[in-house]
Amino acid sequence: MAKIPYRFYLSEEDLPKQWYNLRADMKEQPDPLINPGTMQPAVESDLYPVFCEKLAHQEMDGETRYFDIPEPVQEMYRIYRPSPLIRAYNLEKALDTPAKIYYKFEGNNTSGSHKLNSAIAQVYYAKEQGLTSLTTETGAGQWGTALSEASSYFDIPLTVYMVKVSYEQKPFRKAVMQVFDGKVMPSPSETTDIGRKILAENPGTTGSLGCAISEAVETAVKTEGCRYVLGSVLNQVLLHQSIIGLESKTAMEILGEYPDIVIGCAGGGSNLGGLIAPFMQDKLTGKADPRIIAVEPASCPSLTRGRYAYDFCDTGKITPMAKMYTLGSGFIPSANHAGGLRYHGMSPILSKLYHDGYMEATSVEQTRVFEAAVYFAKKETILPAPESAHAIRAAMDEALRCKETGEAKTILFGLTGTGYFDMTAYSAYLEGRMNDYIPSDEDLQKGFDSLPKIPGIEE
Amino acid sequence: MAKIPYRFYLSEEDLPKQWYNLRADMKEQPDPLINPGTMQPAVESDLYPVFCEKLAHQEMDGETRYFDIPEPVQEMYRIYRPSPLIRAYNLEKALDTPAKIYYKFEGNNTSGSHKLNSAIAQVYYAKEQGLTSLTTETGAGQWGTALSEASSYFDIPLTVYMVKVSYEQKPFRKAVMQVFDGKVMPSPSETTDIGRKILAENPGTTGSLGCAISEAVETAVKTEGCRYVLGSVLNQVLLHQSIIGLESKTAMEILGEYPDIVIGCAGGGSNLGGLIAPFMQDKLTGKADPRIIAVEPASCPSLTRGRYAYDFCDTGKITPMAKMYTLGSGFIPSANHAGGLRYHGMSPILSKLYHDGYMEATSVEQTRVFEAAVYFAKKETILPAPESAHAIRAAMDEALRCKETGEAKTILFGLTGTGYFDMTAYSAYLEGRMNDYIPSDEDLQKGFDSLPKIPGIEE
Repeated sequence: MAKIPYRFYLSEEDLPKQWYNLRADMKEQPDPLINPGTMQPAVESDLYPVFCEKLAHQEMDGETRYFDIPEPVQEMYRIYRPSPLIRAYNLEKALDTPAKIYYKFEGNNTSGSHKLNSAIAQVYYAKEQGLTSLTTETGAGQWGTALSEASSYFDIPLTVYMVKVSYEQKPFRKAVMQVFDGKVMPSPSETTDIGRKILAENPGTTGSLGCAISEAVETAVKTEGCRYVLGSVLNQVLLHQSIIGLESKTAMEILGEYPDIVIGCAGGGSNLGGLIAPFMQDKLTGKADPRIIAVEPASCPSLTRGRYAYDFCDTGKITPMAKMYTLGSGFIPSANHAGGLRYHGMSPILSKLYHDGYMEATSVEQTRVFEAAVYFAKKETILPAPESAHAIRAAMDEALRCKETGEAKTILFGLTGTGYFDMTAYSAYLEGRMNDYIPSDEDLQKGFDSLPKIPGIEE
Repeated sequence: MAKIPYRFYLSEEDLPKQWYNLRADMKEQPDPLINPGTMQPAVESDLYPVFCEKLAHQEMDGETRYFDIPEPVQEMYRIYRPSPLIRAYNLEKALDTPAKIYYKFEGNNTSGSHKLNSAIAQVYYAKEQGLTSLTTETGAGQWGTALSEASSYFDIPLTVYMVKVSYEQKPFRKAVMQVFDGKVMPSPSETTDIGRKILAENPGTTGSLGCAISEAVETAVKTEGCRYVLGSVLNQVLLHQSIIGLESKTAMEILGEYPDIVIGCAGGGSNLGGLIAPFMQDKLTGKADPRIIAVEPASCPSLTRGRYAYDFCDTGKITPMAKMYTLGSGFIPSANHAGGLRYHGMSPILSKLYHDGYMEATSVEQTRVFEAAVYFAKKETILPAPESAHAIRAAMDEALRCKETGEAKTILFGLTGTGYFDMTAYSAYLEGRMNDYIPSDEDLQKGFDSLPKIPGIEE
């Protein structure tokens, strides 16, 4: 074919019709969820009070390799997908690297990130089951926005518990959710037991993602016809997000390319798990052997400095416990951390793959992340989300390494979203007001002290 | 072909290689610019102190039908173009209309609007001429952002005079420009004669677009190697923006479609003039007869209630005078007007076409605009810029008319950009705090009183 274009879009016919379930090809499955009530491995029906049934099934099913994407979900995907696979010619030129750099850009939808891919699926299944309302939490606001869009589209009411500091600092994010009829509550709130408890103990708290999750789960469990939906960490979310990787792989095949290195930012793992899915499949089945790199913030280093242990997914300790790399649900990143990816744990699937040596991980300080973000914006004319810029940083570092060695490696990274709502952080960086924070071993120990003790299970 | 997809992208090979100059097919040319120094028709060299030479030539050339798009401009276009032509299946369904609705979406780039199309061209020609800096003004910030992107890409310093009220209310817009190295000054500023004069007369002023233009022009004229660039109104801008219409027309041809109605929002005319260009060509040359509709805000109604007269393009009255529909350079829209499109005049090309009966115009109140914006966002999952929502409103009204009459008309409208930086206005609308403002005849008369008197020329 002729010169590879800057932006490559699959045709509507080439869009994936099925999601890929990475667990089906894993040599060993992630350890099972533990029901905190019984301290026994959870079964599918244990999840029904929290998740709708089809999603509970997807959460537990480690065998089915492909799940059909329901037609109404495909229909909504087609409104904004395919996302472009972009060849970073200008970045390559600016870095003077022999490497070929590609990125899959998920920011071209109003939610501004890849989160919409799973939001649509989760809302659709809830609607199909006849549920009458949904709850969720949001930190930076991307997930809440995505879910508001999907809920509005499928016409089901949504309450979003938004971490209070974001609620107050990001009124525009809140307003976008309100355009899509999302009901936005600052968390902690007076509407839940856990919210009231936290407020009583610490009236001045600015909230945390773990606390917002607890409030959303409590409301879902106590409200008739209501369920909770979560934008990351879960197996079901990685399943839905596999669309990112499947599209990327098909597009690269058409272009005659295959990545030597696949790089994604890692918070709870939703983007990373989706992007790498079909490439990890090749690795697990021996078809190819790309390097796969998770990039996390140095201020919230669950893979690179966390423990591989059972932990709660929420601060309120009411969700099932998962075996994952975690800093402890009691770990709270420094308030000066602006770069997203603040979650204490990591997807159990990704944790297992990392533990078993299929994946690398690296951490970067936020000033280096923003340096990469600004550099990238100028060259590629896309203003990246700080989260995405973690992957940019690592991709640039790999490309510069290629410059040293003269290797023309093919690098693929995930550009998960845009940074329009992160300008406060950009301004802090540009004006020299941004600092790095790296937790001390003592800081981390405080988080580890919050890890649950599970009878009969040792690390 | 199979069912028309939601999003249709031209392949890179189908992208236009030339801009189309609408004037070449007009039966009568727009009246010439008047040099305010001599009160005589301006010649190309009169413009050299303000514009670089190639742009001055494009401004004055009414004969050349097609201009080659320089390769470096095409190269930067390819980073974010083609923009998608979207079939509004969900909007059609929600409105229950037999009409087919298409929109050309120009918001998928970091500047968030179509403005980038002309910014790239103008910066390229300035660089090519060896100029060493540029100035411009920005109101809502879209143009300033676009120009910052282009200036950063071609590595030429830029100063943006930003209307003070926007500078203060939209710190995030300012920050985006700073990411791209734009130097942003609140206008009026102390850096120019006109700025100091206005501040002395009215220290509390929040500025106006006309004043910011004056400051930018003054700085360009007084600074060695510096020129002024403008994002709308000018003939050269409409030429560059013809890429919108050319892509739209090619895409519709491939899909086997042709619009019965073409609708665009109208401020200075940059988007409208670009979108309609090839369809107006068909109309001027008798090949087809689509209805062409300009939509403007009821609070700044230059086409529907303005005068067709010679006027200055800026408040400072230092630019050449143009014959156009205008409310007078002294007209200032109500501060409660949130919907963009605040400019007092209208592109001379569009003014002439409207005057000669080739185009319709309508005006809409901003609450009806935001009603359409929110409705559209929910159905099409794109959060529109308020400016773009003027076109949405008119397109919805036409589609609803089709529902009444049963006609299956094909409607094309321009979705010029996204509304991420307009959430203050969205919140005002959602919370019922938005009012409409329609200027009284007395209000308009004050603006008309500012129109220049030109010896020997009567309307």
